[in-house]
Amino acid sequence: MKSTIHNDVFLKTLNHQSTPYTPVWMMRQAGRYLPEYRESRKNAGSFLELCKNTEFATEVTMQPLDRYPLLDAAILFSDILTVPDAMGLGLHFVDGEGPKFHKPLLDEKSVQKLDVPDVENDLAYVFDAVKSIKKSLDGRVPLIGFAGSPWTLATYMIEGQGGTGFLNIKKMLYTRPDLIHHILKITAESVSLYLAKQIEAGVDVVMIFDSWGGVLTHEEYETHSLNYMKVIIANLNLMGFENIPKIIFSKGGGQWIDKQAKSGADALGIDWQTNLGEARKIVNDKIVLQGNLDPAILLSTPKAIKEAVRKVLDSYGHGEGHIFNLGHGITQFTPPENVECMLEEIRNYSKKFHAGN
Amino acid sequence: MKSTIHNDVFLKTLNHQSTPYTPVWMMRQAGRYLPEYRESRKNAGSFLELCKNTEFATEVTMQPLDRYPLLDAAILFSDILTVPDAMGLGLHFVDGEGPKFHKPLLDEKSVQKLDVPDVENDLAYVFDAVKSIKKSLDGRVPLIGFAGSPWTLATYMIEGQGGTGFLNIKKMLYTRPDLIHHILKITAESVSLYLAKQIEAGVDVVMIFDSWGGVLTHEEYETHSLNYMKVIIANLNLMGFENIPKIIFSKGGGQWIDKQAKSGADALGIDWQTNLGEARKIVNDKIVLQGNLDPAILLSTPKAIKEAVRKVLDSYGHGEGHIFNLGHGITQFTPPENVECMLEEIRNYSKKFHAGN
Repeated sequence: MKSTIHNDVFLKTLNHQSTPYTPVWMMRQAGRYLPEYRESRKNAGSFLELCKNTEFATEVTMQPLDRYPLLDAAILFSDILTVPDAMGLGLHFVDGEGPKFHKPLLDEKSVQKLDVPDVENDLAYVFDAVKSIKKSLDGRVPLIGFAGSPWTLATYMIEGQGGTGFLNIKKMLYTRPDLIHHILKITAESVSLYLAKQIEAGVDVVMIFDSWGGVLTHEEYETHSLNYMKVIIANLNLMGFENIPKIIFSKGGGQWIDKQAKSGADALGIDWQTNLGEARKIVNDKIVLQGNLDPAILLSTPKAIKEAVRKVLDSYGHGEGHIFNLGHGITQFTPPENVECMLEEIRNYSKKFHAGN
Repeated sequence: MKSTIHNDVFLKTLNHQSTPYTPVWMMRQAGRYLPEYRESRKNAGSFLELCKNTEFATEVTMQPLDRYPLLDAAILFSDILTVPDAMGLGLHFVDGEGPKFHKPLLDEKSVQKLDVPDVENDLAYVFDAVKSIKKSLDGRVPLIGFAGSPWTLATYMIEGQGGTGFLNIKKMLYTRPDLIHHILKITAESVSLYLAKQIEAGVDVVMIFDSWGGVLTHEEYETHSLNYMKVIIANLNLMGFENIPKIIFSKGGGQWIDKQAKSGADALGIDWQTNLGEARKIVNDKIVLQGNLDPAILLSTPKAIKEAVRKVLDSYGHGEGHIFNLGHGITQFTPPENVECMLEEIRNYSKKFHAGN
């Protein structure tokens, strides 16, 4: 597969090979900050319908690539909640309120009924999108597939929606740890199959988004979030996908980088609260780091953006092993020209840090 | 002042003296989880009116003390946004939406007009409440006064409300750092005067709540949040209040404990994401630590609560320098009897860690 990728700087970095510059992509790079995305969405229905529409998913995945030739990777346009949706929880999006489930896991009975979905069929639309996007990319850059972490998916499955302060799932965690582990186990198995099918459909790299690992205690982070991401990584390796790079990202998990480094992942997402240089010392160059510009910087001026980009690159310093990214998804209020400015500065300023230059 | 305090375990801990057990209080201990609080609120008007009503503020401050004899401190019932309200921003509370300002700092003109309020007069209701509460306490336990950190107050002053993702203040931070520093400077001066007056009115300890320091980068946390808390501490010392213990708490700031330890504060609040034992190693017993039970644990069972209490106490280990608290405010859904269970376990289990026993 790799031989067919024209721009392989991102893959080389993930494989600890030398590159001429620091590769970059952006979380949520296909999204509302782009006028062409908003245009595509106009007549296309609900967010979930969009994810299920191969043509649309392909179109919007390609938009940032077409606008920004300096991007080094594409990421599948989809949602982290497709897996619980396939489990029958009834995902829907309420405007201005984010995702909700019609049938959250409110009681023991609903938890016990939870089962691994028919991934191949129920999530076929995702694998179709992957194939279609790969065709459109035609080897331009690698394609990243992704899923939510079991803990993060469980928070939505139990709370039924975001913004609840995680009180329901935590109450269950402290009163019925058996139920939580049952949900996490089923979900980890489902995500393993889901990512395996994405790989079979053509993605070159997989990433697990652990948006809510940071709400756990240091101990629970390991037992309830990290350990289940490890299960997924181990499962994928067992299924013969050792050579597919795996990235994990626990937002708010900067205190636990030492633990994450031993997860079996090839790269760690780093949020902007974390000092990238110190994180590098902790992982001792054994694992690639991806991050960590505060996305809010992209709301400012070219001067401020360039300075901030340099700070991130200076913080990591010389040598391979850094993938530039934001510390979280790009916000919808970002002026698209500011992204251009960021990308140019990364390309120009990062060259001096690479022997491969 | 201290000689008049009957239960001085909290003050002794803050002064690195030996105590027979680990003292405890809870953030937001006077609040909605208590039926007597909800009863008091019934006929008492808006939240802000309540803060401004001496009788009410006294009544609800005393409620948790009356219910739980095992609490080792009282905390003034008030809101962190009283200072910006006194600055003329027009604080009000919308049911179910939290605090809002009628006149947020939307432009340069409004920022330039910002000035230190007439603290003594405009916030007299707070100092009256302190005097009244001290009278009611009659030396039972020490009284904690508090304020929001300049950075945290600035987020509300600029965003106008919570839940906005901090995009407005960050945009200002990156495009017009001069304006942000102007706001932070004015606010730090106001908070210094505010806490000084609380001390003069009788509070025994002051705490600065930095609810939103954790949304900054590691560098900005120092320049925009911690440094202004240091200014307040230094100002209070200059005003002759060296002997009043000062506590700072940056929620989400567990990565920066080394920096916080050099702030001049006597104690650091620690959130539940942080490993208390590791935090103790970092501060090397030079500063007291306060925390860090996940408040969600109080929604569970006596068995789970006791185990969690023991874990926190075990994590800190033997010796003085630990004040038990939650890692964040108690939630309104907490059954009051669970608090009793927590307090009893702290008192019983902590004795073995103290030489003073």
